[in-house]
Amino acid sequence: MSKFFSAKYAALDPYVPGEQPKDVQYVKLNTNESPFAPPLSVVEAVQAEAKRLQLYSDPESGALTEEMAKTIGVKKSQVIMTNGSDEALNFAFMAFCDETRPIVFPDITYGFYPVFARLNGIPYETLPLKEDFTVDVNAYLGIGKNVVIANPNAPTGLALSREQIEKIVRSNPDNVVIVDEAYVDFGGETCVPLINAYPNLLVVQTFSKSRSLAGARLGFAVGNEALIADLNAVKYSTNPYNVNRMTAAAGLAAIEETERFAKNCLTIRENREYTAARLKGMDFTVLDSRANFLFAKSEFVDGKTLYEELKKRGVLVRWFNAERIRDFIRVTIGTKEQMETFLNEVREILAEKGNESI
Amino acid sequence: MSKFFSAKYAALDPYVPGEQPKDVQYVKLNTNESPFAPPLSVVEAVQAEAKRLQLYSDPESGALTEEMAKTIGVKKSQVIMTNGSDEALNFAFMAFCDETRPIVFPDITYGFYPVFARLNGIPYETLPLKEDFTVDVNAYLGIGKNVVIANPNAPTGLALSREQIEKIVRSNPDNVVIVDEAYVDFGGETCVPLINAYPNLLVVQTFSKSRSLAGARLGFAVGNEALIADLNAVKYSTNPYNVNRMTAAAGLAAIEETERFAKNCLTIRENREYTAARLKGMDFTVLDSRANFLFAKSEFVDGKTLYEELKKRGVLVRWFNAERIRDFIRVTIGTKEQMETFLNEVREILAEKGNESI
Repeated sequence: MSKFFSAKYAALDPYVPGEQPKDVQYVKLNTNESPFAPPLSVVEAVQAEAKRLQLYSDPESGALTEEMAKTIGVKKSQVIMTNGSDEALNFAFMAFCDETRPIVFPDITYGFYPVFARLNGIPYETLPLKEDFTVDVNAYLGIGKNVVIANPNAPTGLALSREQIEKIVRSNPDNVVIVDEAYVDFGGETCVPLINAYPNLLVVQTFSKSRSLAGARLGFAVGNEALIADLNAVKYSTNPYNVNRMTAAAGLAAIEETERFAKNCLTIRENREYTAARLKGMDFTVLDSRANFLFAKSEFVDGKTLYEELKKRGVLVRWFNAERIRDFIRVTIGTKEQMETFLNEVREILAEKGNESI
Repeated sequence: MSKFFSAKYAALDPYVPGEQPKDVQYVKLNTNESPFAPPLSVVEAVQAEAKRLQLYSDPESGALTEEMAKTIGVKKSQVIMTNGSDEALNFAFMAFCDETRPIVFPDITYGFYPVFARLNGIPYETLPLKEDFTVDVNAYLGIGKNVVIANPNAPTGLALSREQIEKIVRSNPDNVVIVDEAYVDFGGETCVPLINAYPNLLVVQTFSKSRSLAGARLGFAVGNEALIADLNAVKYSTNPYNVNRMTAAAGLAAIEETERFAKNCLTIRENREYTAARLKGMDFTVLDSRANFLFAKSEFVDGKTLYEELKKRGVLVRWFNAERIRDFIRVTIGTKEQMETFLNEVREILAEKGNESI
């Protein structure tokens, strides 16, 4: 830290992204990426756009925003396209929270929420997940604070129903409820259909997972016009050209590939159920994930050891050194072949550890 | 504004980007873009990367940062690559300024500085440019506040020498001096060689102008290791994957094209001098620009009228409705053909206005 660093950031505890190893070629199941490359139409759209990079992108992302709005059945003014869904979340934390407008979220959820809160000097409170790791809906009813809920939640993969979210939104009319639907396409229930009924509901989604565009950085927020106008006010004060030309082109092409992505999501769900069943067969506890990952713990090997042993064997998963979830690993669902490799290595590790303990 | 919008942003006055018209095909000389498309090597690098978009980018932008550092002759830890130079500037405002650490800059300069200041609740002070629109170096000596200076300055195009900047940096050892060198490649003197001598100097540059990548969003900051570490702390708290895969690939390829870009810059300088001479021939006052634009005023037509008349005729320039510079227009330097079109239209407008006033 330099002597020039602002004291307001003394407690800053930056987000730690999943490992991006450059040394070894891992079976990479640690950052919830899609195992499917983007469709050719996306690649071609990017290629065409690369020839025009000397020109700024459209700050309004007009064509992209319009197409997105049409696809999900809302007005253009109800959508803002962002540089990844992280930017949509950050804009929402900035716009709707401050010292006098705190925010609450589950104790176990996406690790970026407390980072955004600390960055912006926002008081936050965490509400514990229930024993079974589900979100305690009742705890949020009429809480009178801004709320952010990942649905499905990370890293558990567990989802609330739209009806459950609606209860939370309805009971907090003076606060914004942000529903982070990064993983919704893998089996969750989106809250977008509630947008027009609740002026305090903001839904955030991403192109990173189900649409194979993690490396392009594209997300969006949907909500009441006034909420979106607020997010735009923040955007034009920090990052007016937030969606670059190539990403906008990729996004537009991706929207046209709805069928393809639905098929990919179906494959991921099949592989997830297959992997979950196999893990249960090895006496793992596996949460009922609606996302493109599984959160699971072994009866025989602790989470850290499993993570480390898998890494030695060339399979990268994610382990969180945090209370309540230390015993678990989070495994991204990849191709059938990747999951077989993962399962085989797990089986061998369990066999070795079993031998050791004899 | 929604009822949920934080009161801390009540005074927010977002940045207004230059027009990006979609209706008519203009000769677009209003946003200081390069008239040269990116080289084929850049296009090809993007094409290759587009096939891997399902994977997150490297949050460290390791390869790109290393190559950039090598090219400008500093250590990798002295460079941070950013999502446009605007992000580098925003990170610097966030990291080094706060309620107790104000910032000063010229009254006429890049319009984003006051926006960043207001967004982050940073008190700021503007120091007037001198009568001739040059930066009043003496006013900054020992001022004891953080400083940001665009060099060359926008929209004037006038530049300070490295020696003049050094005086400011040396006389304010307890404050950060940010030198925004967005336009330096068109005839300014970079302060990068001063980096190792001054721990309080931060130099910001962009790939948008001289490297034909405005639509890719790539910039960087260079400085003392500790300053760069501070900027990284902010980055990892707001936008860890700030340089997407396609932009990183474009940037790496662009760094290899130094010769080509130098040639482009030379062409721009020649076209600038040609245009300046022709404008002076029509009795314009033209500031001595070291950037890829000219700031000029006519004896006969006010800035607003000239901007509007040019727009009617299909030539887009920028006009700022602000004190001291209302009489001027800012004209981006494009190809020789574009500048001829611009000059011809100006000549016709002057002729018409001359007739009207008879």
